[in-house]
Amino acid sequence: MESLDNLISSFSSLPSIGKKSATRLAYFILKSDKRIAEKLAHDLLNIKVMVKNCSQCGTYTEGDICNICSSLNRDKIICVVEQSQDVYFIDSTGEYSGYFHVLNGVLSPLNGVGPKELKLDKLVNRIKEEGFKEVIIATNPTLEGDTTALYILKLLEGIDVKVSRIASGMPVGGDMEYIDKQTLSRSLKGRISY
Amino acid sequence: MESLDNLISSFSSLPSIGKKSATRLAYFILKSDKRIAEKLAHDLLNIKVMVKNCSQCGTYTEGDICNICSSLNRDKIICVVEQSQDVYFIDSTGEYSGYFHVLNGVLSPLNGVGPKELKLDKLVNRIKEEGFKEVIIATNPTLEGDTTALYILKLLEGIDVKVSRIASGMPVGGDMEYIDKQTLSRSLKGRISY
Repeated sequence: MESLDNLISSFSSLPSIGKKSATRLAYFILKSDKRIAEKLAHDLLNIKVMVKNCSQCGTYTEGDICNICSSLNRDKIICVVEQSQDVYFIDSTGEYSGYFHVLNGVLSPLNGVGPKELKLDKLVNRIKEEGFKEVIIATNPTLEGDTTALYILKLLEGIDVKVSRIASGMPVGGDMEYIDKQTLSRSLKGRISY
Repeated sequence: MESLDNLISSFSSLPSIGKKSATRLAYFILKSDKRIAEKLAHDLLNIKVMVKNCSQCGTYTEGDICNICSSLNRDKIICVVEQSQDVYFIDSTGEYSGYFHVLNGVLSPLNGVGPKELKLDKLVNRIKEEGFKEVIIATNPTLEGDTTALYILKLLEGIDVKVSRIASGMPVGGDMEYIDKQTLSRSLKGRISY
């Protein structure tokens, strides 16, 4: 059946949904009330129309400026992240109440992503003009994320602002037996004195 | 963001997709080209319009009669299954080339599903009129599936047709250490002589 095969292939194109899960989902849609399919279809189309990038920090927002940027009583700290969903992850820890800046990528010369593509000058301008006390660089602890962090650190030299990098080490609940050497060595290097 | 929350809740309403996976999927939709959202939305609506139940065997089909029912060179065997997707599962083993009959449920008096709701008279009529040599009852080996199988066996008493039930026992690759007692006892009862 063409319509079934199409839906299975559409579901398979989503991350972490394989052929088998996609088939189960498609049969669930077939089996269930058509309102479920209609609501999902509506929400899929709606989100692509409604959601834009915040003109200030670059995260997803339904308005022109996101809730965080338009809030006035947050700490004067700026957290630099790779992607919009990182804002959601950090915000939902409840540990951070500053502002954000979304790079929408990381430096990756092989993929043609340089400082220009990430609009790093915009980040530097924000830091200069908006009077932040601290910049937390929260790119992922990967080769690209680390490189991007170092690059930003260089750009901020000479600007009177504290720059920090999120800690990298053993995840909570982790077991040394199963942790890779690089993570363990980071954990040692980044040790915190009592 | 309302549109994001809506999409997350829509994805969460699908089976085996929890809040965390739904969030990841929604962010994927946000991040990716809008054609992916549009294709999925289209396929979701399309399948609910295009797919009906085969007027003969009850499985999903885009026409009036499904491909299997309209094929003339299949074995004169009928396999009784609970749901439409079971047709797909059995057909994809490549081990079976007969016809099917979909009950769209199992006997479950507590949920108000009796012989009438499953249209078992239609099944009996098909078996009488279409000259099948064998009926394979392939309802699941659950309490309801087994009860339904026994009920159908009773209904077919007096009709000149061979009736069989799919084997139930240890799954291939299984280990006795981890198998439940009921399955193991079925495996013993249903042993096959060399």
